[in-house]
This record gives sequence, structure tokens and C-alpha cells, in this order.
Amino acid sequence: MSRGAYLALDWGTTNRRAYLMADDGAMLDTMRDDRGVLAVGREEYPAELEALRARYGDLPVIAAGMVGSTRGWHEAPYVAAPVDAAGLAAAALVLDDQRFTIVPGVSLLTDTRADVMRGEEVQVLGAVAAGLAPADALFCQPGTHNKWVRTEAGRITGFATAMTGELFALLRDHGILAGMLGGSVADGPAFRDGLARGAGAADLTVALFEVRAGVLLGRRAAEDAAAYASGILIGADVGSQGAGGAIGTVHLLADGNLADLYAAAIAALGGTAVRVDSHAAFLAGIHHLRELIS
Amino acid sequence: MSRGAYLALDWGTTNRRAYLMADDGAMLDTMRDDRGVLAVGREEYPAELEALRARYGDLPVIAAGMVGSTRGWHEAPYVAAPVDAAGLAAAALVLDDQRFTIVPGVSLLTDTRADVMRGEEVQVLGAVAAGLAPADALFCQPGTHNKWVRTEAGRITGFATAMTGELFALLRDHGILAGMLGGSVADGPAFRDGLARGAGAADLTVALFEVRAGVLLGRRAAEDAAAYASGILIGADVGSQGAGGAIGTVHLLADGNLADLYAAAIAALGGTAVRVDSHAAFLAGIHHLRELIS
Repeated sequence: MSRGAYLALDWGTTNRRAYLMADDGAMLDTMRDDRGVLAVGREEYPAELEALRARYGDLPVIAAGMVGSTRGWHEAPYVAAPVDAAGLAAAALVLDDQRFTIVPGVSLLTDTRADVMRGEEVQVLGAVAAGLAPADALFCQPGTHNKWVRTEAGRITGFATAMTGELFALLRDHGILAGMLGGSVADGPAFRDGLARGAGAADLTVALFEVRAGVLLGRRAAEDAAAYASGILIGADVGSQGAGGAIGTVHLLADGNLADLYAAAIAALGGTAVRVDSHAAFLAGIHHLRELIS
Repeated sequence: MSRGAYLALDWGTTNRRAYLMADDGAMLDTMRDDRGVLAVGREEYPAELEALRARYGDLPVIAAGMVGSTRGWHEAPYVAAPVDAAGLAAAALVLDDQRFTIVPGVSLLTDTRADVMRGEEVQVLGAVAAGLAPADALFCQPGTHNKWVRTEAGRITGFATAMTGELFALLRDHGILAGMLGGSVADGPAFRDGLARGAGAADLTVALFEVRAGVLLGRRAAEDAAAYASGILIGADVGSQGAGGAIGTVHLLADGNLADLYAAAIAALGGTAVRVDSHAAFLAGIHHLRELIS
């Protein structure tokens, strides 16, 4: 086994993933836990880092994600889009005599929109750097907050965050639909009906109430309510990116059930989903950034 | 003071309002408490009724709202729209030797939509019966679940429920925007910006994330976030009713701050808001129904 040269951290809001990396970018070991930013007090970060080094070796660390936010450890201010990997690297927060580096997030300000991301940019730029996706592409990164990211010539030129996963969870756990959305969500007739209702809808909150009314009035089986509601929300999400035409090819940085659902939604709305390994993309991105920063 | 002839109850999910009524429909006394359907166990209803009669006299009772739902006391099945007051009266659930009557709710099933209401129909039909609004009208009933109700020749012909208030509360109390939406909401520049962003938007969940990004990036003051978010949601709500043209005249069954916000939104989106006293409308409606049932 090659010797570890550095540690790469994907330190998000809820979860944290650590990778032991060789100098050539090969991944030697990995672990994941729930010590995300929300679970770690500001004074606990040094001990967290010490524990990781005790496990993997006393190595330099490069971290991306919410650890660089105002809710994290040290703030690495956003870099405004358009930005490429070199621009991100130039703005990296290099601390502790180059033993701890935080990758900044990306911000977007247009006349009509404001948006931010932290962590997703590493996957996107890594996918391009590793040839997992072309330099001109549309990426989709489903999750609590789904990111749509547009690259042109390898630069992130625009992006949008849809609160799809968060809204589904809020509706499932609280309010009038709570108790109705506990069922499994898979691609099928109810999910497809939801996609059709949600895509392009300018009345999303009306569509969501219909989930309840449809069950009460016997139009839809109660066990299909979750799939239908998920379809509405994912349909609205995917549909919002296809305004004025087909959505085209979407590079899907996801896996598991969420990847299946978004792939089905993209296809149903006339697009083509190309799956990209999000872990490989992150590793390619963080290694590329490390080389640019060193 | 006239003698009380019956008790009218507006028995909703969270609150309950009781009115002591004279035989001619005049309201003699009223009370409101939080003994809504969610707070009352099924076996507690007889005692609740007894307490009301102990206070106001041993009178016949007519009730509308969620008390007639599957979560209430006795289920009064929905009557399908289109329906008028006579149709509602004919389907009323008359119990206890005509001493307790429950007004049914209204359902809507079209090729594409399913919707239900309980209680709001009494206000709408009452507003028409009392001449507070014309027989052909569009009504708006803001609240946790805002109802848009269309009447033609005094019949309810269509309606839609927008989960506007519920979504605002969910976002304020949970998730990524929690802690950002505690500010006051009033008509003003931030609310107006929100209206413009939300009206007609097919990317509502993207717009909601912008509330956070706009504050992080310094585009909007943190204390304006609540007004902006409310504007987005109310803008989407009102805008959803104006598809394909101006919204026209809206009869607004609301009072207080919510009435002010919806009136501002309706005007900003090219419509005309006419305020209607929702309590007077309910009393006119329930009295009219009682006369039709008796």
C-alpha cells in the first residue's frame, strides 16, 4: 500500500467524510461519520483534527464544505462565479503553516438571483478535471438542497439551489401532510403523476395540498402519497431548469435511490441523465485543488 | 336583548368559535378558544357541547368546519362542487333529533386536480347570500391553508388550496431558514421584491433558498428576510390564480395583517382586492343554511 500523503475532508452540515490520499491522488482509506458542522462546537475542531491525524497519520489536511462557513471553523469567504479551479485555489484559506487548508465556496449574484454553495463545487470541477464530464455541462447534485451547476470551458458560470429534499422532509415530519408521507418513494405511476403535476407548475403549494385531497377523495392510494409528493417536488425541481426548452444532457452527481428518481425525472421531462460517480469526482477535485494550491 | 334561538359553531382544526344567535340571524354573543379538533378527543365532544349549552342555554347547535371531518366528531361526507347552499343543506348531517347539525365540506375532482374544504364554504356562500359579494366572484381566504373559491350564480364551481401559511411556518421553525424568518412581515420594499420573485415562478424552492443566500451575500438585510420570504410565498399564491391574464377582482375574506398583505399582493399583481368581513359572512352563511335545513 502506498503511503498516505494528505487527508482530504468533505465536511458538510450533517456528515463528514475523510479520505487518506496518496501523493498521486489515489484514495487509500476512507471513513464517514455524523460529525458534521452542526454537531461540532467551534472549540472542538482542533480535537477533531487531532483525532483524524491520530488515526491516519500526522498529515496535511485539505477540507471543503460547510467547515469553511460562518457556522463552521474558519470562514473561507465565497469566490464569485464565474470561477474555475485556479480561482478557487487562489482564494483558499491556508492555515497552520500550510498544514490545514480550507477550500472556499462559490457565490452567485445576478440582477435577480443570489445563491451560494460549499463543497459541491469540488465535485463539479473534479468531474471536469478527471474527464468524467465535459467542460461544458449541466450538473445536478440532489440532496437536502439540490444544486444545478452550469460549467462553460471548465468554469462554473451559474448555479441554482432547490430546497427539494428539505421541503419533502418538512412536509413529511410536520403539518397537514405529516403521517401521509412515510411510504417508500420509487419510480412508478404515482411518482410519474407527480412529475407531470409539478414540472413547470407555478402553483406548487396548491399541488402539494392535492396530495392530501387526492387520498381523502379516493383518487390515490394512501401508500402512494409519498411517491406522488416526491414526484411533484422533483418534477418542479427538474422542470425549473428546462424553462424555454428541453433540459438536454444532465450530469447527475448522485447515487442510490435519489439518483434513480432524478434520472427518471430528467428522462420523463425530455432530458438525458448521465450518472457520474460523486465520490470519484470529489477526490479528483480535491486532489486537483491541492496541486494548484501547493 | 333578543333571546338566543340556536348556537352556531365554527369548529376548526386549531380554534373554535361559538356564536349565540337569535332566530332572525342576529348575533347575540360570541366566544373563541383553542378547543379545535386537534385538541379535542373523540370522546370529549359530548362534554364540550354540554359546556357550551350550560353557558348559552339548552339550544340546537349547527356546526361547520373540521368537526365534520374524519379527524373530528361525526363525519359529514364532502359534497362535490359545483354546489350551492341548498345542496350543502340537503347533505347536512342532522343528529340527536335535530339538536345537532353538521354542515358538510365541499370536494373538487377534475381530470387534473383534487381539493377539499371544510368551513370556508360557509363564509363564501354567506357572503353571496348577504350581498356582501356578487354571485359571480373570486374569493380569497388567507390562512394556514389559503382557499381560492370561484362562485358562479351563487354556486361554488371551483376552488384551490395553497399551503402558503403552513410553508412559511415550516420554514420559519425548521430547516436552513429557521432563525432567519423571525422578523415582522409588513408591506414594503422587501415584501414587494418577494412578490415579484414569487409570482408566476416555476422554481419556488429555488427562490426560497435565495432568501438565505441574499442575506449571506449582503444583498438584503437580515431583518428583511421574513418579509421577503413571505412576499415570495404570497406572490406565488396570488400569481397562481392569475395565469393567462390579470387576476381581476378578488373578494378578500380576511382581516388584520394577513388581509393587508394579500390586498397589497393582489394590487401589485394587477388585481383589485375588495375586503369582506369574514365573521359577518360566516354568520350570514350559517343562518342561511339553518333556514334551508329547518
